[in-house]
Amino acid sequence: MTDTVTDDITIRRATADDIAGIVAMLADDELGAARENPADQGPYRAAFAVIDADPQQCLVVAARDGELIGTAQLTYIAGLARQGGTRAQIEAVRISEAARGSGLGSQLIAWCVDRAREHGCLLVQLTSDVSRLDAHRFYEKLGFEATHIGFKLILR
Amino acid sequence: MTDTVTDDITIRRATADDIAGIVAMLADDELGAARENPADQGPYRAAFAVIDADPQQCLVVAARDGELIGTAQLTYIAGLARQGGTRAQIEAVRISEAARGSGLGSQLIAWCVDRAREHGCLLVQLTSDVSRLDAHRFYEKLGFEATHIGFKLILR
Repeated sequence: MTDTVTDDITIRRATADDIAGIVAMLADDELGAARENPADQGPYRAAFAVIDADPQQCLVVAARDGELIGTAQLTYIAGLARQGGTRAQIEAVRISEAARGSGLGSQLIAWCVDRAREHGCLLVQLTSDVSRLDAHRFYEKLGFEATHIGFKLILR
Repeated sequence: MTDTVTDDITIRRATADDIAGIVAMLADDELGAARENPADQGPYRAAFAVIDADPQQCLVVAARDGELIGTAQLTYIAGLARQGGTRAQIEAVRISEAARGSGLGSQLIAWCVDRAREHGCLLVQLTSDVSRLDAHRFYEKLGFEATHIGFKLILR
């Protein structure tokens, strides 16, 4: 896993010390505000331990001057479809208020795409809530195509 | 992992002996025909080994009288978002020509949803190509909501 440093921004794999900062970014979001509970860090720490121990997962952070300003989660999914191709999936992309509009989002996604290429993945996939119109334009500008409908069944 | 048997149909985790049958189903599909190459089983066997060794993955088959009639792939993705919730993702759902319209699709998805509940997942997610209109109606009938846009960036 390569650390990428440009314009004083470091993009790297997250460590346990980053958990609180990541959770703050997840909560500071139109949809995330109602879903997150930063007051109880326990469940986040437990989830981090699972992610960190899984070689198919990489939780990513972007930092500037020691402060977290972006995060994303990358998962490699081996499959039989497409001649046994592995796909890379990006989840939970967030850019802190302070860094929005700075081009950091593009750098963060580019970092993930580079890792996916290194891993030999045949494609990178992600879904974005239908309400996030700015995000849709952003991903299309980066070359992603809106080829699929994303369905969710909430269990609890 | 529970085997489910109803109406002579068994739904279970796939073994290496199922690879050729799964690949045949992946290839016998409007979109899959151009993407698959059953003549070369090597890449499929290599991918199966990775999936089978990964505790977060479960390749699923449905069989009737020893013949494979359905397949799907289930992946558990731990994440920090949604208070450290794990999501279950379904990929590569196929029902053989012989079994289409029999209700097998519903049984197969229900099996996956049951496994996701057992695993403590907070949601089940999947994407479906925008052209698969019948599939969209099918997932909505099962309670899934089309809340997201699915983006893909093809790398090779």
